Amino acid sequence: MANHPLDPIFHPRAVAVVGASSRPGGANFVSALIEQGCETIYPVNPNADEILGLPVFPNLGAIPGPVDHVISSIPADRVEPMLEDAGAKGVRSMHFFTAGFAETGESDRLALQQRIVHRAKELNIRVFGPNCLGLYVPGSGLAFASGCPTDAGPVAFWAQSGTNANTVIYDGALRGLRFSKVVSFGNAVDVNAAELCRYALADPQTEFVGAYIEGLPDARDLFQALRELAAEKPVALLKGGMTDAGARSTRSHTASLAGSGAIWRAAATQANAVLVGSMQESIDMLVGWRFGAVPQGERVALVVGGGGLSVQGSDDIASLGLTLPDLTVATAERLRELTPIAGTSIRNPVDTQSLWRGDDLAPTLETIAADDNLDALIVQIGTSWGGAMDPGFAQKRQDRLFRELQQATPRLAKIGKPVALVIPTSHDPFTAQLSGGLLQRVIALGYPTFTSVPAAARTLQRLNTWRRRRAERAPG
Amino acid sequence: MANHPLDPIFHPRAVAVVGASSRPGGANFVSALIEQGCETIYPVNPNADEILGLPVFPNLGAIPGPVDHVISSIPADRVEPMLEDAGAKGVRSMHFFTAGFAETGESDRLALQQRIVHRAKELNIRVFGPNCLGLYVPGSGLAFASGCPTDAGPVAFWAQSGTNANTVIYDGALRGLRFSKVVSFGNAVDVNAAELCRYALADPQTEFVGAYIEGLPDARDLFQALRELAAEKPVALLKGGMTDAGARSTRSHTASLAGSGAIWRAAATQANAVLVGSMQESIDMLVGWRFGAVPQGERVALVVGGGGLSVQGSDDIASLGLTLPDLTVATAERLRELTPIAGTSIRNPVDTQSLWRGDDLAPTLETIAADDNLDALIVQIGTSWGGAMDPGFAQKRQDRLFRELQQATPRLAKIGKPVALVIPTSHDPFTAQLSGGLLQRVIALGYPTFTSVPAAARTLQRLNTWRRRRAERAPG
Repeated sequence: MANHPLDPIFHPRAVAVVGASSRPGGANFVSALIEQGCETIYPVNPNADEILGLPVFPNLGAIPGPVDHVISSIPADRVEPMLEDAGAKGVRSMHFFTAGFAETGESDRLALQQRIVHRAKELNIRVFGPNCLGLYVPGSGLAFASGCPTDAGPVAFWAQSGTNANTVIYDGALRGLRFSKVVSFGNAVDVNAAELCRYALADPQTEFVGAYIEGLPDARDLFQALRELAAEKPVALLKGGMTDAGARSTRSHTASLAGSGAIWRAAATQANAVLVGSMQESIDMLVGWRFGAVPQGERVALVVGGGGLSVQGSDDIASLGLTLPDLTVATAERLRELTPIAGTSIRNPVDTQSLWRGDDLAPTLETIAADDNLDALIVQIGTSWGGAMDPGFAQKRQDRLFRELQQATPRLAKIGKPVALVIPTSHDPFTAQLSGGLLQRVIALGYPTFTSVPAAARTLQRLNTWRRRRAERAPG
Repeated sequence: MANHPLDPIFHPRAVAVVGASSRPGGANFVSALIEQGCETIYPVNPNADEILGLPVFPNLGAIPGPVDHVISSIPADRVEPMLEDAGAKGVRSMHFFTAGFAETGESDRLALQQRIVHRAKELNIRVFGPNCLGLYVPGSGLAFASGCPTDAGPVAFWAQSGTNANTVIYDGALRGLRFSKVVSFGNAVDVNAAELCRYALADPQTEFVGAYIEGLPDARDLFQALRELAAEKPVALLKGGMTDAGARSTRSHTASLAGSGAIWRAAATQANAVLVGSMQESIDMLVGWRFGAVPQGERVALVVGGGGLSVQGSDDIASLGLTLPDLTVATAERLRELTPIAGTSIRNPVDTQSLWRGDDLAPTLETIAADDNLDALIVQIGTSWGGAMDPGFAQKRQDRLFRELQQATPRLAKIGKPVALVIPTSHDPFTAQLSGGLLQRVIALGYPTFTSVPAAARTLQRLNTWRRRRAERAPG
């Protein structure tokens, strides 16, 4: 358990869902909690008897046992009496899925939000939101959507957007990430990014942290919390509203004052938190840390199957601030034994047919990884096949490629340099199925995976800069 | 027919594949030609009798009828005697899939390439390559891979890389592109990018042109051809080797001298050819032209379902040089009638639940498109559902969303502003299947589609700049 006041909030004895209904969509929170194995769930609705097999209570006061956490899914104008019930019941925390407060820009709704904040404080109830999805804590059976992994992991994510919270869980899970806690905290009237960062620092279950922040009243406090956290644990920071147009839309979204992009850039650099440009880049960074892709320098080998890919990849990697040094003579000689001459290259980038045929990929990768001129490898193993191949033949080739990777894994692990595997996504159903399967298999081997060479290169470059800055600041 | 010497080459009476074999992979060209409906195919191989039901000939001389085009799939050191046979047979053009020439950097292989070029010229045989995939001409039954569309279309693509030629065909086809001709021309010892650009200008079947170029001996001639072509038809240009590292790898790939990035940038600007950064951006531009996404200005509305998406999209759009103006009061009032207040925004970006529920999407889009403050719309209609939804329910919602789009289409067409639809790809099998299906349905309605908001915004920005420059240069 973390020594922090939020910790009990993440471990409630029972959860009530106020406004649960049996209409389509109305039981989402209830079904998500059931799916996560939440032990005690109380749906509350004066107009229903049973939801998904659970008895329904007309109000919070009618619930027999204790209730620690409440999910409010009722309209804003009905929240105040419910809050009184919660106070009487001894509720510790309330998550307002309910929206329609300050973010509307209307003064009566801002006033309502302020009354609720004030009253919750008097009642000693911590508030998440309003206007957010709330808590995903797989270890405690808490979730706000179906399809979230039920196993926990070392990543925490604090998202001032429900969509982004869903994105990190779903897209992150596909890339092998598992989570200690994900919190969607919306308008952040009480629990905010600064407090969540201090919690992440204290939480022994959290090793890597991502945050999506639109703004908050007290930037100084957040920057201080970020500095404390990033000094101990890796942090990827996505700031919504870096442009004027984006900043305007944060007001409609979470009533946030975004602050200037320059201030956030300076604060991130000072904290050595890695400022990224999108949720996909957030996931890339978390994958990089989680699967050991921090390089000891900027010298990268690119390994692809195809000349066009090798030229494009070289341009991408060089543009992103990494270098593609020559391989040593010994490496080139060994590769020449493995790689037939026609249509391939044993220079860096290495253009090898072993990525198409599958054979000799293990010795090819091992030879390159052992080269002293290199700090990391980027290997594109997934390619759009279009309709170019018989499905059975393509699957067989991919199985062979996977076996070679599997065979190379222990030796690559011993060499210890990051081997970033690139598997693009596709709108072609056959390619999507094939590459989706390969992705899960190589993640199980422990590889960091990316959807494009630029994404892999950008991540390695950021990880290298992060490592360097961190070493410079290390005490003594 | 185009009034250009290459035109007969693109319409051969018969094709011979020298080096066809019945080994796996050895019959690729033959099966691709059969699939495209090529009428007369002669496999040539002294050690085979039959390939895919076709009789095999021991050499070109043994073929009974005329042969116009030859695909060479034999090793480099066996090419010279075959070339003599082709000369005797009256062959008009030869495509060397065969690699292992100048691109190896070895002097004897460079000399061999030079002898072949010299002799082919004497024999009046035009050469594609060596070290390339050759010709895809759906109208003539020519192809170099299976799974290429058999129907033709208005896009030509000239690719100095086989991988990139495959990418534009497969990934482009998924985005609704169809092709007049795609040529992979490798080391470009004879037919080169300049001649292909002049052909594209003359070809009535070609309306839009893309090119991937690594380099060539005569840059002045290419720049002249590009200027002539781009004055008449839209051109997207991808240059391989814009960085030093990329330029080094063009030498291993197609033995090209890349030239400096600055020179290519200046030449593209002068020609008003749109210089892009990747094959995906090439496809984006071609989709933009083909599906009418050229805006009359830089003022864009973003329509998404989700606050995090709206903030991120605004930052992306503003960063890429477009603006997100306020909607008129009339538009906002009409949207307020359509959009419930909670958790949504009727400002620009418009965050609307109609993209989740599907209903009211038609009037929402029509209202926004009619706003005089706007030149174009970017609408994200595909979202990663993760495991959050029952498949049947998700499909039903998507069907409803599609019907609304279908209903809005005639009115949106009448308003005439580009409506760029964004459908991301995913590694999640269910999302991939769902979004892949939606993609094909909206393409059939005639919409330009993109895989991300930044991709759509970058394309609209480039299309707008292209339109403006073009108007400035228009005579009188």
